[in-house]
Amino acid sequence: MTRKLRWAMVGGGVDAFIGAVHRHAAALDGRYELMAGALSSTPERAQASGRALGLPEDRIYDSWAQLLECERARPDPVEVVSIVTPNHLHFSVALASVQAGFHVVCDKPLVHTATQARTLEKAVRDAGNLFAVTYNYSGYPMVRQAREMVLGGVLGDLRKVRVEYHQGWLAREDHGKQAAWRTDPALSGPAGALGDIGTHAEQLLGFVTGQDVASLSAELTTFVPGRAVDDDANVRLRLRGGARGLLTCSQVEIGRENDLRLAVFGTLGTLSWRQEEPDVLVFDRVDQPRQWLTRGGPGLGQAAQAASRLPAGHPEAFIEAFGNIYRDFAAHIRAREAGEAHTPTYPTIRDGVRGVEFVEAALSSSRDGGTWVDLPG
Amino acid sequence: MTRKLRWAMVGGGVDAFIGAVHRHAAALDGRYELMAGALSSTPERAQASGRALGLPEDRIYDSWAQLLECERARPDPVEVVSIVTPNHLHFSVALASVQAGFHVVCDKPLVHTATQARTLEKAVRDAGNLFAVTYNYSGYPMVRQAREMVLGGVLGDLRKVRVEYHQGWLAREDHGKQAAWRTDPALSGPAGALGDIGTHAEQLLGFVTGQDVASLSAELTTFVPGRAVDDDANVRLRLRGGARGLLTCSQVEIGRENDLRLAVFGTLGTLSWRQEEPDVLVFDRVDQPRQWLTRGGPGLGQAAQAASRLPAGHPEAFIEAFGNIYRDFAAHIRAREAGEAHTPTYPTIRDGVRGVEFVEAALSSSRDGGTWVDLPG
Amino acid sequence: MTRKLRWAMVGGGVDAFIGAVHRHAAALDGRYELMAGALSSTPERAQASGRALGLPEDRIYDSWAQLLECERARPDPVEVVSIVTPNHLHFSVALASVQAGFHVVCDKPLVHTATQARTLEKAVRDAGNLFAVTYNYSGYPMVRQAREMVLGGVLGDLRKVRVEYHQGWLAREDHGKQAAWRTDPALSGPAGALGDIGTHAEQLLGFVTGQDVASLSAELTTFVPGRAVDDDANVRLRLRGGARGLLTCSQVEIGRENDLRLAVFGTLGTLSWRQEEPDVLVFDRVDQPRQWLTRGGPGLGQAAQAASRLPAGHPEAFIEAFGNIYRDFAAHIRAREAGEAHTPTYPTIRDGVRGVEFVEAALSSSRDGGTWVDLPG
Amino acid sequence: MTRKLRWAMVGGGVDAFIGAVHRHAAALDGRYELMAGALSSTPERAQASGRALGLPEDRIYDSWAQLLECERARPDPVEVVSIVTPNHLHFSVALASVQAGFHVVCDKPLVHTATQARTLEKAVRDAGNLFAVTYNYSGYPMVRQAREMVLGGVLGDLRKVRVEYHQGWLAREDHGKQAAWRTDPALSGPAGALGDIGTHAEQLLGFVTGQDVASLSAELTTFVPGRAVDDDANVRLRLRGGARGLLTCSQVEIGRENDLRLAVFGTLGTLSWRQEEPDVLVFDRVDQPRQWLTRGGPGLGQAAQAASRLPAGHPEAFIEAFGNIYRDFAAHIRAREAGEAHTPTYPTIRDGVRGVEFVEAALSSSRDGGTWVDLPG
Repeated sequence: MTRKLRWAMVGGGVDAFIGAVHRHAAALDGRYELMAGALSSTPERAQASGRALGLPEDRIYDSWAQLLECERARPDPVEVVSIVTPNHLHFSVALASVQAGFHVVCDKPLVHTATQARTLEKAVRDAGNLFAVTYNYSGYPMVRQAREMVLGGVLGDLRKVRVEYHQGWLAREDHGKQAAWRTDPALSGPAGALGDIGTHAEQLLGFVTGQDVASLSAELTTFVPGRAVDDDANVRLRLRGGARGLLTCSQVEIGRENDLRLAVFGTLGTLSWRQEEPDVLVFDRVDQPRQWLTRGGPGLGQAAQAASRLPAGHPEAFIEAFGNIYRDFAAHIRAREAGEAHTPTYPTIRDGVRGVEFVEAALSSSRDGGTWVDLPG
Repeated sequence: MTRKLRWAMVGGGVDAFIGAVHRHAAALDGRYELMAGALSSTPERAQASGRALGLPEDRIYDSWAQLLECERARPDPVEVVSIVTPNHLHFSVALASVQAGFHVVCDKPLVHTATQARTLEKAVRDAGNLFAVTYNYSGYPMVRQAREMVLGGVLGDLRKVRVEYHQGWLAREDHGKQAAWRTDPALSGPAGALGDIGTHAEQLLGFVTGQDVASLSAELTTFVPGRAVDDDANVRLRLRGGARGLLTCSQVEIGRENDLRLAVFGTLGTLSWRQEEPDVLVFDRVDQPRQWLTRGGPGLGQAAQAASRLPAGHPEAFIEAFGNIYRDFAAHIRAREAGEAHTPTYPTIRDGVRGVEFVEAALSSSRDGGTWVDLPG
Repeated sequence: MTRKLRWAMVGGGVDAFIGAVHRHAAALDGRYELMAGALSSTPERAQASGRALGLPEDRIYDSWAQLLECERARPDPVEVVSIVTPNHLHFSVALASVQAGFHVVCDKPLVHTATQARTLEKAVRDAGNLFAVTYNYSGYPMVRQAREMVLGGVLGDLRKVRVEYHQGWLAREDHGKQAAWRTDPALSGPAGALGDIGTHAEQLLGFVTGQDVASLSAELTTFVPGRAVDDDANVRLRLRGGARGLLTCSQVEIGRENDLRLAVFGTLGTLSWRQEEPDVLVFDRVDQPRQWLTRGGPGLGQAAQAASRLPAGHPEAFIEAFGNIYRDFAAHIRAREAGEAHTPTYPTIRDGVRGVEFVEAALSSSRDGGTWVDLPG
Repeated sequence: MTRKLRWAMVGGGVDAFIGAVHRHAAALDGRYELMAGALSSTPERAQASGRALGLPEDRIYDSWAQLLECERARPDPVEVVSIVTPNHLHFSVALASVQAGFHVVCDKPLVHTATQARTLEKAVRDAGNLFAVTYNYSGYPMVRQAREMVLGGVLGDLRKVRVEYHQGWLAREDHGKQAAWRTDPALSGPAGALGDIGTHAEQLLGFVTGQDVASLSAELTTFVPGRAVDDDANVRLRLRGGARGLLTCSQVEIGRENDLRLAVFGTLGTLSWRQEEPDVLVFDRVDQPRQWLTRGGPGLGQAAQAASRLPAGHPEAFIEAFGNIYRDFAAHIRAREAGEAHTPTYPTIRDGVRGVEFVEAALSSSRDGGTWVDLPG
């Protein structure tokens, strides 16, 4: 193993949930060293967080703009910037980071509008940087296994796919800071549950099936009185490969924690996976007993094995899956430095763009009473 | 316990799945004695089946018309006729049975058209007979518990309900006799999966929530090439009480056996139930640990206890739930004889009518691309 | 199907749990007609119960002795007597019933002492009657499947077997009538949990492995103060075929309902089954993904299919398994009448004797601090 | 957060399972920096592993003795040494490390004999160093929750505890390098499964109940022909607080991955936990519905919350639990530097000593046919 990548965060102060997740994920395999940060939009909190994380005094920045400027000017600048701010800042920070020459890891949903998304995608292409979007659920080994099986034809022709994402933590009006910005359209973007978790579901579906959403009919609902964004969505899908789909997500289902589920149905069989029991992939074939494929267990392909760190029965979970995104991103950076080819397994800016287009189409469909809306090809 | 009810079956020869279920269910509590039958539309098979079941020679009939006529003429006629033929015969046999003065147990879906359904409902009202439709899943004790809790306000105001019914046995084109008639519109009616299992889901939803479907938007799909009816359906619902709903059903999900699930979401909590683990009802409340309510276990109400035969941990299942329909129907007949009031817990002709109206509305909506269709009030 | 068997019960008044179970089980397949009973040792309750069950007035008996005497004298005597009294009466009633020429179904544990058991076994042999002991758990289809697989060598050489039976309903001192007689040695016999549920576990183990217990080392415990019998047992086993075993049972594990589990381990694989999810048999083989075999599903052998009534996913449970014992007992009686051979799948007097010998050996071992005790060969 | 602890490993070359686990666990929270290593007993592999891990050239050592000597001589020596060699080296390396003044993290089982264990314990006491034994399962948040509830009296008086540890990976004779040293008494110590996984079970039991094993009766078995150590154990326990216990472990149960389970039974309730679903703790109380406590969910105490990194439903697993051991060890070192009190939640040398005493007693009991053996007080 060579030198660790020099790494900065924008957002992710010590009391932010997702910032800590990124730090654990990046730390897990020892390929990143956090060296700089603009960890909060409030300078005092940015300073306090930087010190708490042990950053060098001179690399604790009061703003992301300052971070980009000062780091560019250093002889040993950071190489990767992770953006873990509320959504409304993603576009500006990501665009500036890309244009400043940094590789970027950005949280989802990528940006607020498809126009922003395509602008950013073009900037990435122009700059030639690497760009990851942390659709972390595609990092689970058994999700990788599902993709390998589906693309390998194990299920025959795909007929339908169902992806569900159930949460309950926004069932009440008041749920603290994490809830506040996620239900404020100025910060979260025009979608609520659909943007926050529906985009995860959409990306997972595309990752496993290899088929994008061609068109959709959506019904978005706001159950909690006074909420300015949707907290529940139900989307019928037609995929480019001809399969049909159903995507549902909700944040008002009391008792559901982080209940993301995927089921893919083909002419020859079915695969089923649940995020809360992530080491298992259930495999059904016509007229055969059900099989349980387990991470680390017998019968797995290369993709799952490469994404796994422990033997069977020693469970891996959320941070390890998230870490797989960071690990592969580091590998891509190092491969590029070495002039070697590397096929990313991490979600790229393309996934990010598709997610934003999906949200826009669903909002449009729902406004029109569930009419079918095509997505850009 | 008084004398057993004298009972006849139309349909349900020895090789028919559902006929045997009715016999087990009716036998379980010793309140019915099978005394007559027109067990097949083929006289030879009707005779063979009747003998195999030990019916008296003179009460094995070659046709249902003969059965009704001869039984009426006897001094000791049967009191209850169960109709377990393919769907296309339900209307004629039920109407004639009602008009002949028999109490009727009829399988679902009730009939092919809403017009038939309402005609039959009127005949029942005019005749003053009792009429049960074997929506058997509402017979499960923990479904009864769910209804009692929901109607008692335990979940607060209902926000949404999701009912799913997944099967895989029709994923291939050729699946034998049981499949053949269910995919022939002349025999099964205009709907496939939606009629066969979607109506169960619709009735279950109404039973537990106490709210009927007010309007719907449906997408029906036929995945198996050459099939003349839908084998998959996805229906958005608005209920009369204001809740939203999602009903999905499919018979092409390989590996799913009889995976009927219900989840009811309110402002205060959630109830979740699965038919394949029927003795458990999962209860979630805001900011409380999840509870598992079990049949026979602590914390149950009167409805579940009345529908239960065994202590906790001694599982009850499909036949026992089905038997609860038959047991309560017998109790109603006896109560009426005794001049006593009886509130049925079994599904009545009203449930049957609603199911047919639901199917008609869904077919109409789907033909029109998923437009919203109102149901009769 | 021919005429139903004329059937009597000793014990099993309307408020007794196990009597109702026998009635449901016998009713399920329509092969028995309850015609006589001595349903309680208290004449008033015997009469009330008999009337409630609709027995003919002249066949409601005040004592089992009267029942045997009067039925023998009738032209149409009952053919089968089921004994569902508290344990202390099993020996007298069973012996007299056998000697009076009736076929007998007797609850478990068979009798109080091995001497009684062997006396009764000899009487059965001398009389030539049929005798079933309702070790009902061996009636589950997936238990039959396990036996077929184990005896067919699918697991290779057996190494060990673990059978566990966990209940919690006797965790407190006061648990009502069902508890009272089960913890009174005069009524239940010298063992408590070991006799009540440990014998089920022992029989299940022998049924599935085809190997009897050769020797054992037991630790019995009485956790509840003042209780006169064990409420918890832990027994190391050596089986005749060379496998080792562990049998544990308890009635003081709060929250456990009727948690009977079996796992059989061989050189090639493992089978695992749980009574509370009885339609599933988990099958593990070396270096193969886990398989779920389900009742009614693909990959089952003849034994499971013969014991099943419904398609996959339509759960069967306790009463159906119990009914399989009754159904096969009826088939044996009818086969014998017809002069045909019949290999019983129901547990016979032999199983009953072994259970009593097991209890005696375990009591002896535990009294001696867990010393190894051989069982009769 | 202050400076990271300077850290070395003895053992744990790049192809060793457990070394990588320690590195992931220590990396997770950013409190250790791996700076030196004697990663293999083969110098070439030690060098290759050190380079692969990015260690400075001058701190890649060919032997543990060299590591201790050279690090002591540096101005910036490592502060913590983790010992992840095969078991036979634990004693020498740990003793020398302690005597050289390093804090030590040592894998389990601690050493081969109770005499060694007590010698080492005395050395730790004399040196005043900190010493952790990586009984990692006690690091799971819901295990911490169970301990807090049990010690807080939620279960009433403890009656019994059952801990089971089932694996199947040693069911065959040949299982590669990981198996080889574990079944060679010269390397693994006198016990096989009992040492490798039974000690985990014993520590978990003591951790959760707060009661040590007072005496035991053991039956160890070697199922695989030619194996020199046990691969299966069954141990009856009496705990110092009066509770009874059962500990079973096996490595020949085909299909079992890492199936560690704990159930604690008291006069008021039961707690149940499974390592393969580690975020759930099942809580049963007399006459109350079962509760599911989940990591991050409602109703948890301080101990579980302190050991958790993610919200409910975002699963944590093996590495996170292991990381809790490392994190608390770092906290203890820093607290000591700061002159602050710190109550360790990580397992200490005392746990290690008890584990070795447990193994010795069990071996002795089993050799004598299961006789009861007292453990040192």
